[in-house]
Amino acid sequence: MALAFRLEGGGEGPTSPRAGTLTTDRGEVPTPAFMPVGTLATVKALTPDEVAGSGARIALVNAYHLYLRPGHRLIESLGGVHRFMGWNGPILSDSGGYQVFSLARLLRVDDEGVRFRSHLDGSEHHYTPELAIEVQSALGVDIAMPLDHVLPGDAPAPDQRDAAERTLRWFDRSRALDPAPALFAIVQGGVDEDLRRRHARELAARKAPGYAIGGLSVGESKAEQYAMTEVACADLPVDRPRYLMGVGSPEDLVHAVAAGVDLFDCVLPTRLGRTGSLFTDDGRVNIKSARFRDRGTPLNSDCGCTTCGNYSAAYLNHLFRNDELLGYRLASIHNLCYIHRLCERMREAVLKGVFDAFADEFLARYQPADEAARTEQRARWETRPRA
Amino acid sequence: MALAFRLEGGGEGPTSPRAGTLTTDRGEVPTPAFMPVGTLATVKALTPDEVAGSGARIALVNAYHLYLRPGHRLIESLGGVHRFMGWNGPILSDSGGYQVFSLARLLRVDDEGVRFRSHLDGSEHHYTPELAIEVQSALGVDIAMPLDHVLPGDAPAPDQRDAAERTLRWFDRSRALDPAPALFAIVQGGVDEDLRRRHARELAARKAPGYAIGGLSVGESKAEQYAMTEVACADLPVDRPRYLMGVGSPEDLVHAVAAGVDLFDCVLPTRLGRTGSLFTDDGRVNIKSARFRDRGTPLNSDCGCTTCGNYSAAYLNHLFRNDELLGYRLASIHNLCYIHRLCERMREAVLKGVFDAFADEFLARYQPADEAARTEQRARWETRPRA
Repeated sequence: MALAFRLEGGGEGPTSPRAGTLTTDRGEVPTPAFMPVGTLATVKALTPDEVAGSGARIALVNAYHLYLRPGHRLIESLGGVHRFMGWNGPILSDSGGYQVFSLARLLRVDDEGVRFRSHLDGSEHHYTPELAIEVQSALGVDIAMPLDHVLPGDAPAPDQRDAAERTLRWFDRSRALDPAPALFAIVQGGVDEDLRRRHARELAARKAPGYAIGGLSVGESKAEQYAMTEVACADLPVDRPRYLMGVGSPEDLVHAVAAGVDLFDCVLPTRLGRTGSLFTDDGRVNIKSARFRDRGTPLNSDCGCTTCGNYSAAYLNHLFRNDELLGYRLASIHNLCYIHRLCERMREAVLKGVFDAFADEFLARYQPADEAARTEQRARWETRPRA
Repeated sequence: MALAFRLEGGGEGPTSPRAGTLTTDRGEVPTPAFMPVGTLATVKALTPDEVAGSGARIALVNAYHLYLRPGHRLIESLGGVHRFMGWNGPILSDSGGYQVFSLARLLRVDDEGVRFRSHLDGSEHHYTPELAIEVQSALGVDIAMPLDHVLPGDAPAPDQRDAAERTLRWFDRSRALDPAPALFAIVQGGVDEDLRRRHARELAARKAPGYAIGGLSVGESKAEQYAMTEVACADLPVDRPRYLMGVGSPEDLVHAVAAGVDLFDCVLPTRLGRTGSLFTDDGRVNIKSARFRDRGTPLNSDCGCTTCGNYSAAYLNHLFRNDELLGYRLASIHNLCYIHRLCERMREAVLKGVFDAFADEFLARYQPADEAARTEQRARWETRPRA
């Protein structure tokens, strides 16, 4: 599986914002790019056409979920996951490390792998780095993740160190398999700056085709998330794509791109959409709010998404107040489109050499949902070292 | 609101199968035709484009539901229900008679109208024939239904008689309002043959632009439903469209068209779709069944719907086993497409003069979900008087 990445703008230092292109056998992905999450080989409520129409160029599926149901061998026998779900562009799969440690009933972790009980039916499984690669190869994805040991951000330091070291050993074992999909390395280390740095350096030395930053957006503060992203990026090779796992709020994307990140995935845009929470440049709005009840115009006439192009805010309000399934779709489309467009705007700003001004303006206007997060975010942004 | 109906084939007698065209200001509807149900101004889970793509030429909304939420005056202020929901073709609205009597908490019925408490918030309402027309005029629909008094099929004969007579008086009051939408008359009378006949005759004398047959598919037997449909049709004018309310299973459609019905509506195709029950010429299949788990081909390669054109039965099975929202959409599209295509096939058979042969073949092959219903249906079909 060929994978190439070329920088087209920015990226002067390891933590500078960048614009690039990720090239896979199934097409090119201009970066920064957001990958919609199709955990079970479906981006919830949407067809592949709608996902592509929202601006997505690459999608994500989850190896843990598809391993459990319907099974990777079944999907392989049906021609692979692209054909199964009807998505012809590139697909990146998460190994399921995060899911094994957060979702399954964990039985035992040792160097060999992880024993857990399925969250679906309680069946017992022994998931190893080798099995994670076998699953992802059978799915036929374009980019795979090695199994990693993920801990909550506030886990004790010795546990974080053990998990990071194990993740490193598991990466080496995974890479030795010479798997068909391109294999990224995942930087762990919790919110310990030294551990993050050391882990990033050790993985950087292995020259993986790409790097993921894991174990963030799992309960740590925004300030810690931003700091750890920057620490990881500082020691990663500039010529390889960087993927910040599980991050998807607009303000977090701007901060991460500022630190040199290229790729993102998160359930947030579609999950928020299904609750009626829609992205705008001023922050999220709740479409169920009474102020939208009689608004005959779209939520945002300049949005460019098919939802804003075809439906009034009043109609979306009506659909959500009645729990109508169409509302979930239309809101998911809007939110994905917003995030993809945000990535495009950041890319344009990098290419024009005006990313800092873009980020200043965006963050001054965008109101995060949580006021504490907002204060924290602004303080961090305003005190950052200037180029 | 101009409404015209012209017969193009069949219809030799009042209970002969017919092919026609219903012409409205918003477009033509070849008949027999099925109207997808968009109770709350949305055909559940689908966009207007998908509804049209499935073959629908006319849609249905419900005045009771839209009166309660978001309110007909709000929809009027936003430009009417077509614009609100983004459906540009003709729309027929049900008055809400059936919903008032089946869904709301009924307080009192007298000649003036109905007092009920909303099923949503318990608020008290006084719904009259006049209000039902006011609501539907404000929605701006193309065809309206008068308020009718609907009873379960097994209600005592005197109650059925009173309800039918009240329905007649309410129709006269509704018609006197000279409402903007074309107003159909609704034949009631439960499963009492004499009452049905008398009611049909009295309404027929009033030369409505179209006739609905109400109070069926509400618990009576299949044999009674078929018999009452035929009794009503026997006394309705041949040159006006006949609409059998709330009937939507494939075998029922074939029986009703055989008796001279032109229009149908029912939540069945989309509701069944959302449970994973899909129509085929052999009867319904449950897509969750294990036999579809590894079927890499579509449910029906000849179907012509976008679901069968793009997705394998195995993928649908996977979506339903995981309660994925996309499954509800794809199955709803398939079922609507199946019903619309069935109407087209019946139309073609009428125009070719081979409807009886088509019906024989269809009913011999199609297995209704319920074996008792099947036996009853076949017996009735086989003993019908031949032309």
